Amino acid sequence: MALVNEHFLKLPGNYLFSDIAKKVNTYKVTHPKEKIIRLGIGDVTQPLAPAIIEAMHKAVDEMAVQETFRGYGPEQGYSFLIDTILKNDFASRGISLEPSEIFISDGAKSDTGNIGDILRHDNSVGVTDPVYPVYIDSNVMGARAGNLESGKWSNIVYIPCLAENDFIPELPSRRVDILYLCYPNNPTGTTLTKDELKRWVNYALANDTLILFDAAYEAYIQDPDIPHSIYEIKGAKKVAIEFRSFSKTAGFTGMRCGYTVVPKELNGFTLEGERVQLNKLWNRRQCTKFNGTNYITQRAAEAVYSPEGKEQVKEIINYYMTNARIMKEGLQQCGLKVYGGDNAPYLWIKTPKGLTSWKFFEKMLYEVSIVGTPGVGFGPSGEGYLRLTAFGDRDNTLEAMARLKKWLI
Amino acid sequence: MALVNEHFLKLPGNYLFSDIAKKVNTYKVTHPKEKIIRLGIGDVTQPLAPAIIEAMHKAVDEMAVQETFRGYGPEQGYSFLIDTILKNDFASRGISLEPSEIFISDGAKSDTGNIGDILRHDNSVGVTDPVYPVYIDSNVMGARAGNLESGKWSNIVYIPCLAENDFIPELPSRRVDILYLCYPNNPTGTTLTKDELKRWVNYALANDTLILFDAAYEAYIQDPDIPHSIYEIKGAKKVAIEFRSFSKTAGFTGMRCGYTVVPKELNGFTLEGERVQLNKLWNRRQCTKFNGTNYITQRAAEAVYSPEGKEQVKEIINYYMTNARIMKEGLQQCGLKVYGGDNAPYLWIKTPKGLTSWKFFEKMLYEVSIVGTPGVGFGPSGEGYLRLTAFGDRDNTLEAMARLKKWLI
Repeated sequence: MALVNEHFLKLPGNYLFSDIAKKVNTYKVTHPKEKIIRLGIGDVTQPLAPAIIEAMHKAVDEMAVQETFRGYGPEQGYSFLIDTILKNDFASRGISLEPSEIFISDGAKSDTGNIGDILRHDNSVGVTDPVYPVYIDSNVMGARAGNLESGKWSNIVYIPCLAENDFIPELPSRRVDILYLCYPNNPTGTTLTKDELKRWVNYALANDTLILFDAAYEAYIQDPDIPHSIYEIKGAKKVAIEFRSFSKTAGFTGMRCGYTVVPKELNGFTLEGERVQLNKLWNRRQCTKFNGTNYITQRAAEAVYSPEGKEQVKEIINYYMTNARIMKEGLQQCGLKVYGGDNAPYLWIKTPKGLTSWKFFEKMLYEVSIVGTPGVGFGPSGEGYLRLTAFGDRDNTLEAMARLKKWLI
Repeated sequence: MALVNEHFLKLPGNYLFSDIAKKVNTYKVTHPKEKIIRLGIGDVTQPLAPAIIEAMHKAVDEMAVQETFRGYGPEQGYSFLIDTILKNDFASRGISLEPSEIFISDGAKSDTGNIGDILRHDNSVGVTDPVYPVYIDSNVMGARAGNLESGKWSNIVYIPCLAENDFIPELPSRRVDILYLCYPNNPTGTTLTKDELKRWVNYALANDTLILFDAAYEAYIQDPDIPHSIYEIKGAKKVAIEFRSFSKTAGFTGMRCGYTVVPKELNGFTLEGERVQLNKLWNRRQCTKFNGTNYITQRAAEAVYSPEGKEQVKEIINYYMTNARIMKEGLQQCGLKVYGGDNAPYLWIKTPKGLTSWKFFEKMLYEVSIVGTPGVGFGPSGEGYLRLTAFGDRDNTLEAMARLKKWLI
């Protein structure tokens, strides 16, 4: 009798984004004439940059000719891309990494989800709250979460990030073996300074904690004092795995490409306290359960770093960040408290008049036909907040602000 | 202290294909003038078909324009591809499946590796032997394999496939909860008839065994009596997950696309004996730890089924299968016993004079500069065999046969 992994059965049946989709659909059916503006899901809307398109056409043509055709590539990714990443994302910031410390993948969601494969089921896990649901759900599947009790998993340490603490997480009172940090943060759009991040690296060094650092939104950082990589902090290579993604950096949400950095200095431990290089384990995991990223996509990612690519990608990011500025100013003019949006494509709004996340979501949908994401969907500390994203196109963004002003002022 | 998954540490450090690469490299350095012919690794050599190239250029252009740009796609794959698969791979053989029973992925290696996520760690596992190493290694990582004792994992049931039993696996003496079957078989190149496969489906129905059926090589079947899908057998939807791949079907090894069929009739069980739809669990796994397959690749896969695509892909398969015929005849003329190669791109050679797999591998490398894969690398029952693949180009294949004839006759 094939037995199932029963931890899957603990997961609530409802998904945040499908719940939202259902509610939006109901509204659509009952209000067929209203034009809905979707500022909920964090998906990009601008097309790929011309340099990327050109690189892909070239790679497609290579696949048409025997001499340049590519079959299986390295599970870890092609060195043309790894070398380009090392030079542009790390060496340029004074971070020295080896090619074998970089693993190209089909995206940060896969890697943050699969990283648990190399870790024991009984590690304690900490997350900042609100949080990207994949960190939680993948740990539920991996038997690390315990049971769901009034919105919290019993074995997960939630570290609240609220307006009250300026969204700066406090060091946890209970020791954690594994800690997820995502900065610039999804969903709050807030960031950590170098000093604040240093406090976490030092905590990890002192406690042998493994930090899983998700830097998927680093390209949106505008302020020169905010770290793009955790490895800008001394000692971080001993404690942190970093996840990167081309999804938001270069509009690759439909392309599927990211990479994960596993420094060789970073160890996990056996029960007997022996040190084990996590780099070796992740390499073995990827060689066994992954077969490399699509060649054309890797060429596309390489083009992100070409002089034209950089210029074009920066322009798209500026476009979204201009949306973010327009939104932040607009929302503030409406009298709302808004966080994030300065160094991230997310705006985190305190709901007015103490409304719950879902109540404010529904009012905004029914009164001005704008879709956001209820903050509570990201965890208990998200209650009383709503997330908007700056990935819409300009006209919709402007129209959304006009509707909100008319509604709220 | 972050504890590692200690099962990873049980895996032998050496990988079959890296051992081979090292040996080939040594030979290359010491014999710089010899032209090596590689018939070892199962990678394709022919470029992608024109219809596929055309579809990709079109999809690339769509990504350049806002109106047709695609961001996040469905985790399960686009319906344009799922519907095409249902019509061509299943309805055409009288198999009726629903779109939600198909999950598009980045390849069969990922899916056969990750499927263990939804299953308990204490299921018993059976494999035919010799076997594709991913089935074994992913179960070691998933805590299901026990310990390695003289070449075998203590908790895995090995079902020998040898010349002595015509490579037809016998039903296992010890009950298994999960059974891997790969037909046409990698590495032996042999197949099962409908009656033989039916015996396994009936075994699974009687024992509540879950069959993980890997049909990655079905496109190479020439004989009309050999099943392409396990669902051609009555009752199979209640017991089997089927893995498909475009890698060998259409030369997608560098493209990364496959799909997995999880019928809704198929159940796993809780410890209390309750039935759980595996389809739901796999869907949850994919939605949490995977973010869909590259859009351009899905359009490429769709083109495999267009009238031109079908014709062109068939031509490439014929090319490889002509290689296989040339090889089988040539090897037989050399006095070797050869299996497979009629309905699969693999030839499984009994080593002459009782040589071990590695000894014959080395003799062939050093005496005629041809690289094969030692059978023992695929499991204990592979000892005394060597695998050759028909994926080379024609000239190399012909030259390899000429060298072997000169050497062995």
